[in-house]
Amino acid sequence: MRVLVLGGDGFCGWPTSLYLSDRGHDITILDNLSRRKIDVELEVESLTPIRPISERLRAWREVSGREIGFVNVDLATEYDRLVAVLKELRPDAVVHFAEQRAAPYSMRNERAKRYTVDNNVRATHNLLTALVSTGIDAAVAHLGTMGVYGYGWSGTAPIPEGYLTVKVPTPDGDLEREILHPANPGSVYHMTKTLDQLMFAFYARNDQLRITDLHQGIVWGTQTPQTARDERLINRFDYDGDYGTVLNRFLMQAAVGHPLTVHGTGGQTRAFIHIRDTVRCIEIALENPPKAGSKPLVLNQMTETHRVLDLAKLVSDATGVEIAYLPNPRREADENDLIVRNDRFLALGLQPTTLSEGLLEECTDIAARYRHRADPRKIIARSVWRAGMETADDLITEIPPEK
Amino acid sequence: MRVLVLGGDGFCGWPTSLYLSDRGHDITILDNLSRRKIDVELEVESLTPIRPISERLRAWREVSGREIGFVNVDLATEYDRLVAVLKELRPDAVVHFAEQRAAPYSMRNERAKRYTVDNNVRATHNLLTALVSTGIDAAVAHLGTMGVYGYGWSGTAPIPEGYLTVKVPTPDGDLEREILHPANPGSVYHMTKTLDQLMFAFYARNDQLRITDLHQGIVWGTQTPQTARDERLINRFDYDGDYGTVLNRFLMQAAVGHPLTVHGTGGQTRAFIHIRDTVRCIEIALENPPKAGSKPLVLNQMTETHRVLDLAKLVSDATGVEIAYLPNPRREADENDLIVRNDRFLALGLQPTTLSEGLLEECTDIAARYRHRADPRKIIARSVWRAGMETADDLITEIPPEK
Repeated sequence: MRVLVLGGDGFCGWPTSLYLSDRGHDITILDNLSRRKIDVELEVESLTPIRPISERLRAWREVSGREIGFVNVDLATEYDRLVAVLKELRPDAVVHFAEQRAAPYSMRNERAKRYTVDNNVRATHNLLTALVSTGIDAAVAHLGTMGVYGYGWSGTAPIPEGYLTVKVPTPDGDLEREILHPANPGSVYHMTKTLDQLMFAFYARNDQLRITDLHQGIVWGTQTPQTARDERLINRFDYDGDYGTVLNRFLMQAAVGHPLTVHGTGGQTRAFIHIRDTVRCIEIALENPPKAGSKPLVLNQMTETHRVLDLAKLVSDATGVEIAYLPNPRREADENDLIVRNDRFLALGLQPTTLSEGLLEECTDIAARYRHRADPRKIIARSVWRAGMETADDLITEIPPEK
Repeated sequence: MRVLVLGGDGFCGWPTSLYLSDRGHDITILDNLSRRKIDVELEVESLTPIRPISERLRAWREVSGREIGFVNVDLATEYDRLVAVLKELRPDAVVHFAEQRAAPYSMRNERAKRYTVDNNVRATHNLLTALVSTGIDAAVAHLGTMGVYGYGWSGTAPIPEGYLTVKVPTPDGDLEREILHPANPGSVYHMTKTLDQLMFAFYARNDQLRITDLHQGIVWGTQTPQTARDERLINRFDYDGDYGTVLNRFLMQAAVGHPLTVHGTGGQTRAFIHIRDTVRCIEIALENPPKAGSKPLVLNQMTETHRVLDLAKLVSDATGVEIAYLPNPRREADENDLIVRNDRFLALGLQPTTLSEGLLEECTDIAARYRHRADPRKIIARSVWRAGMETADDLITEIPPEK
């Protein structure tokens, strides 16, 4: 099918684009390269040396013989260009990754908060409006987050896939109603994904758009079989305090001899997914869109849950690197349990990649290979989540020589 | 107290500003005059001849001896100016009316949809971000809408004030949880108010902002004791298919001899409030803000419910003007019941103004006095809510001479 990948140059978008191309789909990437520009702003780079988009696409052509299109469009501000691309391409499906995706970055300062809301809300709403106005009936798959649910809200009940059946007391007795799971976002970034959900619900109902919202866990890993085919295709590896995700950060920290940074007690339990499963989930979602007139289909895109401290201990035990306990900037419980339903993806054929030594090693190898590219002053998270919060000093200021 | 009124030049904002000024508060209006500019775009004018803002303020000074400040700022796009105003004024309270407020306008075309989302989301989020970054602990009162709840969702249960207690099934039995009432918006405009709710919830929790969200019913009436003191202070009276509200439209239609336009069966029941009660409710809300750290306080700002057809019949019986049944562009049930809780405003001292002949007549008098200003080609609602919807032709093309 013809697939337009919004945000196809990013950490999830790039491997997804290659995977779908490899599977025979016609891929066009629409991206404004904002993720690379934020690296410039933050004065940090992906640990892995990612190549310019045109070089990436050329390399993919060389190794696969397949062409991926690219248009540099700012989805949030260049609406007319989006409409023109849609009309020209008439995609069967649109994958929407084009949002600012780091919670710490979204809490950094007023500018970053406003950028995150402006960019994410407009990107989503422009896409929906453009589909309605062009009459293009493309299936939409959007990358959401498990963070829309919050943690610990529903006691021992597993987190359902988007919708929750509740009993509403009425004078005529309890009424059973299926509701969108109440939103409990922990950051401005997560908040934007809860706003997306309401926009999806409205446009699915009013205009019969076919939308799948993928509530993804924390991604770990770097490479997919496609990105590993040539060094010029290598995926991003973010290790900094804004964009790095927890397990990848631990693996990178271990590789450079930096204490493993646990915020708070580490008792937070989170959902995880390997990047290889992310790309497969997107394909499954595109193959199984909801019917026109249905409410948005919500799938929990995760494969396992772990306590943050358990992951830190796993990495610490394997590498001998100590754990550093830092203040937790987030307003959240010290500890939470987490049980998540992901029945739908399993029923649709997902074979989960679970945390395994082999994959951890692959990741550690990459971190070790590129450790010389790390800036130790970018490791500590310093976003100001709220007035008066504490932040930590740098724990190391130089990368020690390799042992 | 020092009150900053965002959107203080509009239909609710203007009488609120005068009322609060009359009550001894120090008022500054922040407005970009967007409502007047949309009139230009739609080639329509308020039935009542509203004066330029500076003339309005001069007239108020003359009749009351009181000064109201005015700054022309676009809240959605001029963030730095908003911050400067907040720092200079250091308001005790901010009333936030500064949103595009017509459902039909918000469904008119892709441009209006996008404007409504961009303007409303950014206006709200800029305000919240600016309060956090300046550290100004002002009580915020925001004008929401009853439309966030949708109609008929909860069967015979009265619509609560913002929050709903439900039972969530868990392996350990039912868990009682108070949730934000599920959102069920009927237009892009209403959708933006559901987005506002989630932003308020986040900023109240993360940054301890004190926010009251006023879910207002359909406003009717034109004048308050303050706007009636001088013709130069007269309030807006919108009669067009985009901005006119249903009861005011019926009264105006009767005054010019236009059939009363009922969309669908008229079986829709809606909540109503007179503009005199709107201004009083705002004052009550400002006097009773939630405590820092509380979730947003939600008050249903309405005083009675009516079936649309009953209102049409009331006006038709009183005036002899017939009823015209037009297609309903909205995706909604033909008929709905509506019971709404408004206990909090009643407990806080609101004396509801209910539908009375005297007030209807006042409104009819105004409509009759300015009937020569009406453009009959602006009466029919023609916003395209969804692909393939029917719209009606003009029912009259000239205003008949007064009887």
